[in-house]
Amino acid sequence: MNDSMRSAETLAETPLLDSIQSPADLRKLPVEKLPQVCEEIRRFLIRNLANNPGHFASSMGAVELTVALHYVFDTPYDRLVWDVGHQAYGHKLLTGRREAFAEGNRKFGGLSGFPNPSESEYDTFSAGHASNSISAALGMAVASSLMKDKPRRNTVAVIGDASISGGLAFEGINNAANTPNNLLIVLNDNDMSIDRNVGSLNGYLANLTTSKAYNDLRYKTYRMLKGMRLVSDSGKGSILRFNNSLKSLISRQQNLFEGLNIRYMGPFDGHDVATLVRVLKDIRNMDGPRILHLRTVKGKGYEPAEKNPAKWHAPGKFDACTGERAADKAKNDGMPKKYQDVFGETLVELAEKNPRIVAVTAAMPSGTSISRLQEVYPERVFDVGISEGHAVTFAGGLAKEGLRPVVGIYSSFLQRGYDHIIHDVALQSLPVVFAIDRAGLVGEDGATHHGANDLAYMRTVPGMIVSSPSDEDQLRRLMATALGDDIKQPFAIRYPRGAGKKTEPLCKPEPIEIGKARMLKSGSAGAVLSIGPIASNVSEALDGLDVAHYDMTFLKPIDEQLLHELGKAGKPLITVEDGTLNGGLGSAVAEWMADHGYMVALRRIGLPDEFIPQGTPEELYKLVDLDTESIRKAVEEHTKGL
Amino acid sequence: MNDSMRSAETLAETPLLDSIQSPADLRKLPVEKLPQVCEEIRRFLIRNLANNPGHFASSMGAVELTVALHYVFDTPYDRLVWDVGHQAYGHKLLTGRREAFAEGNRKFGGLSGFPNPSESEYDTFSAGHASNSISAALGMAVASSLMKDKPRRNTVAVIGDASISGGLAFEGINNAANTPNNLLIVLNDNDMSIDRNVGSLNGYLANLTTSKAYNDLRYKTYRMLKGMRLVSDSGKGSILRFNNSLKSLISRQQNLFEGLNIRYMGPFDGHDVATLVRVLKDIRNMDGPRILHLRTVKGKGYEPAEKNPAKWHAPGKFDACTGERAADKAKNDGMPKKYQDVFGETLVELAEKNPRIVAVTAAMPSGTSISRLQEVYPERVFDVGISEGHAVTFAGGLAKEGLRPVVGIYSSFLQRGYDHIIHDVALQSLPVVFAIDRAGLVGEDGATHHGANDLAYMRTVPGMIVSSPSDEDQLRRLMATALGDDIKQPFAIRYPRGAGKKTEPLCKPEPIEIGKARMLKSGSAGAVLSIGPIASNVSEALDGLDVAHYDMTFLKPIDEQLLHELGKAGKPLITVEDGTLNGGLGSAVAEWMADHGYMVALRRIGLPDEFIPQGTPEELYKLVDLDTESIRKAVEEHTKGL
Repeated sequence: MNDSMRSAETLAETPLLDSIQSPADLRKLPVEKLPQVCEEIRRFLIRNLANNPGHFASSMGAVELTVALHYVFDTPYDRLVWDVGHQAYGHKLLTGRREAFAEGNRKFGGLSGFPNPSESEYDTFSAGHASNSISAALGMAVASSLMKDKPRRNTVAVIGDASISGGLAFEGINNAANTPNNLLIVLNDNDMSIDRNVGSLNGYLANLTTSKAYNDLRYKTYRMLKGMRLVSDSGKGSILRFNNSLKSLISRQQNLFEGLNIRYMGPFDGHDVATLVRVLKDIRNMDGPRILHLRTVKGKGYEPAEKNPAKWHAPGKFDACTGERAADKAKNDGMPKKYQDVFGETLVELAEKNPRIVAVTAAMPSGTSISRLQEVYPERVFDVGISEGHAVTFAGGLAKEGLRPVVGIYSSFLQRGYDHIIHDVALQSLPVVFAIDRAGLVGEDGATHHGANDLAYMRTVPGMIVSSPSDEDQLRRLMATALGDDIKQPFAIRYPRGAGKKTEPLCKPEPIEIGKARMLKSGSAGAVLSIGPIASNVSEALDGLDVAHYDMTFLKPIDEQLLHELGKAGKPLITVEDGTLNGGLGSAVAEWMADHGYMVALRRIGLPDEFIPQGTPEELYKLVDLDTESIRKAVEEHTKGL
Repeated sequence: MNDSMRSAETLAETPLLDSIQSPADLRKLPVEKLPQVCEEIRRFLIRNLANNPGHFASSMGAVELTVALHYVFDTPYDRLVWDVGHQAYGHKLLTGRREAFAEGNRKFGGLSGFPNPSESEYDTFSAGHASNSISAALGMAVASSLMKDKPRRNTVAVIGDASISGGLAFEGINNAANTPNNLLIVLNDNDMSIDRNVGSLNGYLANLTTSKAYNDLRYKTYRMLKGMRLVSDSGKGSILRFNNSLKSLISRQQNLFEGLNIRYMGPFDGHDVATLVRVLKDIRNMDGPRILHLRTVKGKGYEPAEKNPAKWHAPGKFDACTGERAADKAKNDGMPKKYQDVFGETLVELAEKNPRIVAVTAAMPSGTSISRLQEVYPERVFDVGISEGHAVTFAGGLAKEGLRPVVGIYSSFLQRGYDHIIHDVALQSLPVVFAIDRAGLVGEDGATHHGANDLAYMRTVPGMIVSSPSDEDQLRRLMATALGDDIKQPFAIRYPRGAGKKTEPLCKPEPIEIGKARMLKSGSAGAVLSIGPIASNVSEALDGLDVAHYDMTFLKPIDEQLLHELGKAGKPLITVEDGTLNGGLGSAVAEWMADHGYMVALRRIGLPDEFIPQGTPEELYKLVDLDTESIRKAVEEHTKGL
């Protein structure tokens, strides 16, 4: 048993932490007490997350940074913007949400798993989709400068080395030096995305560490000169404006960030809280945009997580003492597989037969199970890092030269690639397959992560085939169809997070007819048209009712033969989908019936025009009337009342 | 009269150019003849674009580059990918499209104004939306490497200094060094976007020029060592691998691109075609990704364009001899204003009264007329360069701190910001106003530039108010409404390219009721519901018909009171919109009627589910049945037949 495990077991008390109701309390402590606060935060996180799963390793790695930021800056007057927010649990604990966190992190009606402005004034901006912090914080800093806030308001963006490789972050950095602002960018560099980080910038950051001697010298010289009042931070009324002058004195070496006119400082040890406090105090009142580069360890302070940070990104339940994850203990024999695994395994099967099949993912090889293909054909998998737009356009290039790329990205993240899908794929009718994982309601990750819009926005793309399997077998069939030699256009397949329902062996992946629905049940009082695995709720709901059930499988092209039959029959119709009602399946059916002059009574069940919070899928289905009982009630009402 | 003007007037013959039916013919010429080819291309462009307007200055600046690329590389086997494509007219002239260009550049049924793969095998990838070339070409280069194409296939991306500042380009560069490929990126650096370039990267590129001595030395040393066979390009079997070894020998200076593991060469004079040919031949067979930095002059070879490249980006018709633009001569007194100017002027009026109003644009201050506000309050306008995603998120930050940002972006480019609108604005219900210019069919720019999808995709965003004015007065009223103190949510206003119809003075910009339609005409046989300025076609179409006409103004929230009245009346309805039928106004009405149990005969008129080509708006409206005559016919059929 190592130290961190023992501490988790034996030292359950968090006396200092318990006295901190807000960052103001933290700031009353002497700096010598901060390591203990950090230790208590870690203990709290280990104890709580062991039982109520969440994002673990990122927050463990950002503890000292979090404490130092709230200690040095005058939050909430000063603004902290957390990128993604996986690392912000410590921030929640220090800002009056300790009990709420313990009771209901990521639970229905509880705390959001991400910073959420509607939850706390300390959460200044939405987080969940990577790389937005610099742009958002820059807007906030520029606004503060323009409004001449007194006292000066500091704005801090905290961004990881994976997020900073996203194009949005680059756009933010590229614009940071253009307008008056006092933005501080803290680069929390742990050399990890959720999976391992990729991209050249990553290598660049590693190289910066090797030039540490130069930066150390520079920083020490700055402190010395400042002590001698030979430099000031604003450059006004002093002999030297520090940054450029010293640089030209010491070295002609050019730093990427300074090349973009952002003062660069670092790298520093992100786990030395006293140093962090000193450095942050030193640079707090500097004028203009600047970047502070910290080296941290993902999972810091909990040995199992330090050893395997990817597994411990969101480990699920675990034994705090032994470090054993429930997921590793679980016997999954005979249990239904996750959709992502059915996808990953089927991808390997199809790729074995067709050497032109390749896969692209944006920093999610494990999450999408594209890692399965990576294990067998590493040269045929491209993990492009957090860059969804590039992933799509790059896949367009691959397809243009005759390959058959499969782009595996989570639904809500693929929104970043909407234009690229239109302009770089569909316009040329390139056969790119979009494997849209985490479609529909994803559960505990909440509003930022629900894949609510994909059916609707994909339907607006000319030439796009839009499909969703009702079960694991259909996913395999759709993949075989999408990757068939006859397909000359883009093809989207959306499927949910989590496991399916099948325990028996899955079917052979044989192609199916495009645009053809399947009748799952006959009936004479009306018909339910559903798309996706919500079909299983529908099936249960219709048990004993004289109502037909069709699994549409394809939203576009839609099964026109079926719709003609239903239109002519004139019986009540109900559409069911776990996507937004604005523009999805129900919308397509309403349009089609109108266009073809059929007058049918149509009831549409799906996601309302609002952001859906976090909760278990069951809680959320109930919330939006997609649970079995609500569907049954709606069908009964609609088929009876006419 | 200067030289370039005289040449345009007196030397109309293009004997060399006339002999070039394909790049193979070009490659038969001795290198000494290439300056004459360049001169002839310039003459051809001046003569043709004077009468048939198009993008002028970019192509003038890329003539030598274009000739050198086709001379050195084995196109079409080697792949050229043009970013945006404004600069690709010379490329079209050299690849067998001289007559087609002269006859119908940008015309209905003629050549696309951009590279278009369906037009020529030399056009390898879609262009029009900035910054995609590196990602697309990287995909193509990686595919070629993976498929082990023999002979080796070279892939070249040509990108301007404005486009390379887009996040997508950064994502491409960041990934270029990760996989085996022989991508050559040519940076065509003319220090201009359409408007003046902004952003730190721009300053960085300027600084690279000052380190030219180092690069010159490096390049000359490379040639010398290569002559001595001391280096090879692949690093195999030679004493030195050139790039890193020399760098470490000569200097510790670090180049941004080399920091990202891309070999950097340059800057070179992009108008010295002989040097370009020599350099391209030298680096053609190098292994791995590399970037060649060229300095060029936008408008090169035509003095008026060199002097004012922004005006001559797309100058319209002009007198080739005098350099006078028809637009400058035109007396616009008493003519209707452009929508963008009504927007720009109204923005100034509203901003004068409310100091919290600011504006954000992505490299289009002139095109959006946000330049009007810039002239009066430069500190309240943020031109963030080609970075639509950042523009939206940055505006979210501004709004979060209490400002009232107006984001002015063209409709089809705003697709790049879809996720940012959802995640960084709507999720927090921030009052950002989206001024969506170039909505609907834009005319000669064609498929990549039509704003077809904005109504549909904006409707999927929870909390978004989606509106479109039917005329210039309504635009002013909508702006006043959107910027009212009572608005606590995002607000989209979409309006078209070009001029409105009003010649009388415009109304005072007073707020109107949100979600309320206007009756433009009464009638008893049915009703037409339209959104946007297509209302004027509808008005003409309904002349003399007993059919009502409502200008919906708001797509979301839709006027439910009106829909109840129409649903109860049960008369035939027709919806008219210049947006995609998948998910737009007609879709919303069909949904609403179904949801509320009304059985009405609904006919939907709008854009079909396909990409619409270029042409005049009139030609295109006719193509998609949105012209007056087609609307009238549809209304007559639909209201009579029932």
